[in-house]
Amino acid sequence: MNIDIIISHEYIDEERLKGKTAVVIDTLRATSVMTTAVLNGVKRIIPVMETEEAIRLREKLISEGESVILGGERKGLKIEGFDLSNSPLEYKKDVVSGKTLIMTTSNGTRTMNKCTGADTVVIGAMINAKAAALFAGDTGKDIVMVNSGTKGNFSLDDFITSGYMVSVIKEKDPSVSLTDIAYMSLELYRKNKDIISAMEGCFHYNYLKSIGYEKDLEYCLTKDMTQVVPVLENGQIRKAGQTA
Amino acid sequence: MNIDIIISHEYIDEERLKGKTAVVIDTLRATSVMTTAVLNGVKRIIPVMETEEAIRLREKLISEGESVILGGERKGLKIEGFDLSNSPLEYKKDVVSGKTLIMTTSNGTRTMNKCTGADTVVIGAMINAKAAALFAGDTGKDIVMVNSGTKGNFSLDDFITSGYMVSVIKEKDPSVSLTDIAYMSLELYRKNKDIISAMEGCFHYNYLKSIGYEKDLEYCLTKDMTQVVPVLENGQIRKAGQTA
Repeated sequence: MNIDIIISHEYIDEERLKGKTAVVIDTLRATSVMTTAVLNGVKRIIPVMETEEAIRLREKLISEGESVILGGERKGLKIEGFDLSNSPLEYKKDVVSGKTLIMTTSNGTRTMNKCTGADTVVIGAMINAKAAALFAGDTGKDIVMVNSGTKGNFSLDDFITSGYMVSVIKEKDPSVSLTDIAYMSLELYRKNKDIISAMEGCFHYNYLKSIGYEKDLEYCLTKDMTQVVPVLENGQIRKAGQTA
Repeated sequence: MNIDIIISHEYIDEERLKGKTAVVIDTLRATSVMTTAVLNGVKRIIPVMETEEAIRLREKLISEGESVILGGERKGLKIEGFDLSNSPLEYKKDVVSGKTLIMTTSNGTRTMNKCTGADTVVIGAMINAKAAALFAGDTGKDIVMVNSGTKGNFSLDDFITSGYMVSVIKEKDPSVSLTDIAYMSLELYRKNKDIISAMEGCFHYNYLKSIGYEKDLEYCLTKDMTQVVPVLENGQIRKAGQTA
């Protein structure tokens, strides 16, 4: 088994994902939101690329009798007409339980749409890193950690989450091979176990802090808050193993 | 001034280089070879993409009365009909001085051909890292460290060289801003000043070791062996400031 990392959704080569297990990571904040929503009982999440698409889909699903909420962000902020922003703290049980969540974000949902060629698509964040890593490892296939990045660039929050996941998989099975970039993520994680202080020089971390999301940062960078593993199948995200 | 890094020639977006200073880095081994050749008095280096192109160009230049040598590699090994491999130790003064060197390598020369849109293209390696970094910083423009990578992938040797160059520029001018990936290269360098031991988990390092190039590795990973700064202008590489 081999582990590789793609450092930004701009760099996804769909061919490179064929036959593999992809772990989509957007720690600040899309995959943290998704994991939280699944933990709190959302029925399913449908990631879409555009705001208009989200609004049209809401109308359609409501007309079919579904209970729907819209969530996401542009430039880190709530989208006009949406129910929720991209803050995981808003995705509480009484808000999301039993509902269909339609989401669009700047980086995370874009990344997911490019990963559908993989055999399995796991949703990973720091809050479910260990569980997501073990689930990916158990597929027995080569793993590609697909970092969403920020505005097409590398983002350290996703990379350090990847490094932690690599460490979890390597610990369980030391024979796993790593590409140089996966090896580097592991080294980086090992030398920066204090995640918050490692993040302090980073662009997206400081941007979110500057627009008032300090509590989100603390939440999203908390390791292993949950064992929930969301997976993307047939265009929707649900808890792994959930059948209904 | 800002510093960014592109981690593989596969990811070069030529638009992103416009108006900037590019530092092309292929520490193992193309830019180490080029720096050595320039240090040892080569007249100019012409990087080309294909073996056949190199052979045709040699014939043309010889017919014009030039003294020409061919150097480079495929899969790390010397190309049939070429004078020299991609080992910097072969590029001695008595071999290269006063001659035109035509080079083709798997990653390094490809990278250079994609960087010609930058305002200035500097050739950097660990052996001239400090001088190349200071030269790039003195242009006053935004800097992109363009890592050649290996087979389209990230390669730690180029990245750690970038980290050292970032540290040199930051030390001279602490106001320089860094993208997340540049910041990470700096962190990585600071925590792995023993370059050789940092490299031991890396693919390309171990590949070169396995085919008998241990002495090359030691040479290429020696910091600041020379102050020579080669630059690429009009399709040829010469010492910065060389006019004839």
